[in-house]
Amino acid sequence: MSRFISQKFEKLVPYTPGEQPQDKKYIKLNTNESPFPPSDKAVSGVSDIFKRLMLYPDPECTGLNEKFAKLIGVEKDEVMAVNGSDEILNFAFSAFCDKEKTAVFPDITYGFYEVFADYNGVPYKKIPLGDDFKINISDYFNANATVFIANPNAPTGIALTLDEVEEIVKNNPDNVVVIDEAYVDFGGESAVPLIHKYDNLLVTQTFSKSRSAAGARLGFGIACKSLIADLNTVRFSTNPYNINAMTMALGEGILDDEDYTRKNCKKIIEARLFAENELKKLGFEMTNSSANFIFARHKNISGEKIYKKLKEKGILVRHFNGERIKDFNRITVGTKDEMTVLIGKLKEIIKEEFK
Amino acid sequence: MSRFISQKFEKLVPYTPGEQPQDKKYIKLNTNESPFPPSDKAVSGVSDIFKRLMLYPDPECTGLNEKFAKLIGVEKDEVMAVNGSDEILNFAFSAFCDKEKTAVFPDITYGFYEVFADYNGVPYKKIPLGDDFKINISDYFNANATVFIANPNAPTGIALTLDEVEEIVKNNPDNVVVIDEAYVDFGGESAVPLIHKYDNLLVTQTFSKSRSAAGARLGFGIACKSLIADLNTVRFSTNPYNINAMTMALGEGILDDEDYTRKNCKKIIEARLFAENELKKLGFEMTNSSANFIFARHKNISGEKIYKKLKEKGILVRHFNGERIKDFNRITVGTKDEMTVLIGKLKEIIKEEFK
Repeated sequence: MSRFISQKFEKLVPYTPGEQPQDKKYIKLNTNESPFPPSDKAVSGVSDIFKRLMLYPDPECTGLNEKFAKLIGVEKDEVMAVNGSDEILNFAFSAFCDKEKTAVFPDITYGFYEVFADYNGVPYKKIPLGDDFKINISDYFNANATVFIANPNAPTGIALTLDEVEEIVKNNPDNVVVIDEAYVDFGGESAVPLIHKYDNLLVTQTFSKSRSAAGARLGFGIACKSLIADLNTVRFSTNPYNINAMTMALGEGILDDEDYTRKNCKKIIEARLFAENELKKLGFEMTNSSANFIFARHKNISGEKIYKKLKEKGILVRHFNGERIKDFNRITVGTKDEMTVLIGKLKEIIKEEFK
Repeated sequence: MSRFISQKFEKLVPYTPGEQPQDKKYIKLNTNESPFPPSDKAVSGVSDIFKRLMLYPDPECTGLNEKFAKLIGVEKDEVMAVNGSDEILNFAFSAFCDKEKTAVFPDITYGFYEVFADYNGVPYKKIPLGDDFKINISDYFNANATVFIANPNAPTGIALTLDEVEEIVKNNPDNVVVIDEAYVDFGGESAVPLIHKYDNLLVTQTFSKSRSAAGARLGFGIACKSLIADLNTVRFSTNPYNINAMTMALGEGILDDEDYTRKNCKKIIEARLFAENELKKLGFEMTNSSANFIFARHKNISGEKIYKKLKEKGILVRHFNGERIKDFNRITVGTKDEMTVLIGKLKEIIKEEFK
């Protein structure tokens, strides 16, 4: 750091994204991307706006917000497009947390929450998951803090039911509850319908997973109008033109082809079931995933060894060093073909280990 | 605002972007966009990445940063791509300012600086421009604060010379000096060469003006490696994937066609000279603009009246209510044809006023 950086950031440790090595071509099962590109229909509108790219994009994202709101059954003023859902999570830490209103989230969850908290100068408490890696919902009741929960959780993939989410929201009448639904389309239940019942619920979603657009950066916040207005205050105080015109056009195109998204989600769920079955046969145990990844450990081989061996064999998965999860790897569910290659490589690794 | 927003934001007033009315088709001379779309060569690479949009973009922006660094004669680690230059200005307020290290900037300048300061909880002082709207550089020496200067300044268009900028940087050895060069390509001198001499200089640039890409959201910070590293700490603590893959491809395409950019800048400077001459004949006086806009007042007609009459006649310009500048309008320089229409409409307005 330079001699000029504000003291408040002297100990700030930024988030580390999943590795993107350039040394060779890998089967990438480490950052939970979709194996399917956006459809031709989805991208068809992007080129139409090249001739208007010299103009600022609509800071209200009118067309995109209307289309997304309609799809999920809410009003336009109840949604807000963002430059990837990380942006709205950061906005939420900024808008709804401070030294008095702190933050709580599980000890094992999306690693960015604590970075957002540190960046925004927000004290936080990490609440341990149960031994089964499940969230105990009553741990979050009357939190006297803003609550951040990924549902399904990452890297475990375990989902809360809609009733369980509602219990958390209901039991925090004076705290905002943020439900991060990055992975909801692979088997979770969305809390979106609850925004009309509770003024303290913010749901975040992303186009980076089920909608095949991680490269285009698009996420959404969904909440009652007054919470969305607060988040827009943050946006208009930092970067009103946060969504570029190409991403806006792509986003609308993706929403025009919702059928493609649904079919892809179905394929991924099928590939997950296939891989889970095969992994069990090889001696892996895993959490009950409702996401597009599998969180698995082998009964005899360390998580780190499996990660390294798979990398040598051209497959990237994500390994975390946290004490409670270091035996595991988080494996993105790709196509069934990719899962078949993965299983083959794991068989080789097990054979090499016990020859 | 909702009952949940942090007290720190209770009085936050967001930035108001220039109006984008949808009621009819205007000649848009109000937000300093380029009248020229990106070239075919510039956009040619965007479609190539549609098939990879399901993958996260390179958070290091390697190719784009390398290409831009090469063009401006610095190293890759001395530049940082951002989601429009508003993003890096906000990062600079966040990284280099706090309650102790406050901010200073001119009283008449880009209106977003005070919003960034308020958002980041940074006290600030506005230093009055001279009666001629010029920056008195010695007002900024040993500021004991982070210095923000737009050069050329907006909405005046008046530029400091490189020597004057160097004096400010040299006389603030313990303060970061941010030179916002959004409009530098229309007649200003860039401070980029000084980053190798001073570790306290951050230059910001944008692709929204001279490079015809306001719709794609792309800006840059340019500074010594340690300042860029600080700004990357902020970026990786808030939104590491801030630049989407389409904008990255477009940015590289634009840099591959630098000749087109230079030709367009030349056309805009010619159109500015033409319009300035005509405006003088009509009784306007104006500042000495080195930007792609003209800051002009009429000797007999109020700024607000001219703004309103032009809007009725289908031309949008930007009017500010500030006490010192309310007689003026900021008029974006479009094509020579657009300037000819503008002059015609102003002639009508003057005739109507004094018939």
